[in-house]
Amino acid sequence: MKTCHRRFSALALVLGLPLVPTLAAQTPQPPAGPTLAQVLAESTPADWRRPDPENVLYLELPAGRVVLELAPQFAPRHAENVRKLVREGYFDGLSVLRAQDNYVVQWGDPAAEAGDAAKARPITTAKAALAAEFDRPAQGLPFTVLPDGDVYAPQAGFSEGFHAARDPASGRAWLAHCYGALGVSRDNTADSGSGAGLYVVIGHSPRHLDRNITLAGRVLLGMERLSTLPRGGGPLGFYEKPEQYLPIVAMKVAADLPAAERTALEVFRTDTPAFARLIEARRNRREPWFLDPVGHVELCNVPIPVREGDSQ
Amino acid sequence: MKTCHRRFSALALVLGLPLVPTLAAQTPQPPAGPTLAQVLAESTPADWRRPDPENVLYLELPAGRVVLELAPQFAPRHAENVRKLVREGYFDGLSVLRAQDNYVVQWGDPAAEAGDAAKARPITTAKAALAAEFDRPAQGLPFTVLPDGDVYAPQAGFSEGFHAARDPASGRAWLAHCYGALGVSRDNTADSGSGAGLYVVIGHSPRHLDRNITLAGRVLLGMERLSTLPRGGGPLGFYEKPEQYLPIVAMKVAADLPAAERTALEVFRTDTPAFARLIEARRNRREPWFLDPVGHVELCNVPIPVREGDSQ
Repeated sequence: MKTCHRRFSALALVLGLPLVPTLAAQTPQPPAGPTLAQVLAESTPADWRRPDPENVLYLELPAGRVVLELAPQFAPRHAENVRKLVREGYFDGLSVLRAQDNYVVQWGDPAAEAGDAAKARPITTAKAALAAEFDRPAQGLPFTVLPDGDVYAPQAGFSEGFHAARDPASGRAWLAHCYGALGVSRDNTADSGSGAGLYVVIGHSPRHLDRNITLAGRVLLGMERLSTLPRGGGPLGFYEKPEQYLPIVAMKVAADLPAAERTALEVFRTDTPAFARLIEARRNRREPWFLDPVGHVELCNVPIPVREGDSQ
Repeated sequence: MKTCHRRFSALALVLGLPLVPTLAAQTPQPPAGPTLAQVLAESTPADWRRPDPENVLYLELPAGRVVLELAPQFAPRHAENVRKLVREGYFDGLSVLRAQDNYVVQWGDPAAEAGDAAKARPITTAKAALAAEFDRPAQGLPFTVLPDGDVYAPQAGFSEGFHAARDPASGRAWLAHCYGALGVSRDNTADSGSGAGLYVVIGHSPRHLDRNITLAGRVLLGMERLSTLPRGGGPLGFYEKPEQYLPIVAMKVAADLPAAERTALEVFRTDTPAFARLIEARRNRREPWFLDPVGHVELCNVPIPVREGDSQ
């Protein structure tokens, strides 16, 4: 699916280049099994889930919709508060304030960000600050452990559709800052975030943020509408001039829209034999392009597939 | 430097919010030492190097310059061939053909990519295919080992200014696919690449490509000119219509330009006590924003700083 091979491999032959020896005969063969494409092609409707529309948010940008899924099992207070902020229209007309290359895009209220209380948009039904939800008890949480270890946590894996990590010694579990993760910006104190400022990871996964800040979900669709935004020229990638801000048309909870205005999509389950096959297909690369089948995989290189439409 | 904190932390106080308890008293304190900003502020001219202009390439795009550094110590044949391609003007007027979100941007000749030999730009002085340089002997190569392990290699670390990995058992070393890595596209056979198609990593580091394809260097400056490109709508992020291609104004070897047209820059050395302090500053986060100092770091989350200008 994601390889650096060219679409057409006939060039060398077409140009009459000499055939060159390959490493194929020397390279180890991966265990038999399907590729990721085969895992998805062989999947059944039961391998997919439709996210609860109460947990699905639409970030409407001028270029189109970004679909996000909240993870209330990891951050119940923040999921609830973000829903309230969205429903009171807090984000509508606010802006993307920051795009830092290889790091995050962040949106919210420019006046609040600048500490201008007089101009800051009031928060009416939601809370203006919440106790942090950096982690939670691992007990009671389904968890599919990756077998290849992790630099940042004793265990890395998947829980209810999200990249996550776990520490059996402390009995804690938490969401991981993989590409596309949705977080809640905060000041220097743990409990200074509310969801009024949100960010999404757009670069190499900054796992050092894990357990330093509350993650509340992830992007399901439309990631490229955030990742391609012009980078800000100020410190931390903040835009320096208001005219650089990208306006937020609106944020909505999917449950509040009529069905015709929702984005129909399904997310691959992470607690199924099919997902175990997907992990194995990413650990052992069987696509013909791969000469070394690799044999292991890092957490954030395992995709949790999303497909548009509704098979059910 | 790269944190999710807000620029102004006064908001909660300004809005008269109740002070909330923080985790600061409970969190472990990191070992004493400087932050990354302090390491850089305390650095001396000897901690920086000016890359050899024979190894510095300029990719001139309509939006401006991307500066790349070749790594001939890892890929001598490819570095030489890419220089030849650049010097024969091979890339001038060709295009960025592919931008796959969370993966790579790739450029080269659309006709060659499509297997259209009649329209493909001829390669005149360079070679049209090269033996792969997926890895090399570790012997004789300086290597600064990271202490926190790696999912993809027995050892990860730094060699002569590049993110790299090493296997003491086999005695091999190779460049790592971190954000900004420059690679040489190939067909399904190991030796089908030449440098006429090049790619740069723009997402979470796809380390499973390590030793499956030849890396030839990395981006030093201007990464955002690649990472913000519109993503292609075709398979693997290829653009579907020629009008979507981004033209390459030119590629140049820095050594071929008069000094006034070169981008003056310096790269932080990776073999110095200052770089050891930088690694420690990324392993143990001492910035006030961090409540958990983390205590470890993954290879691609260690920056190799670049600064514009010339201190020497």
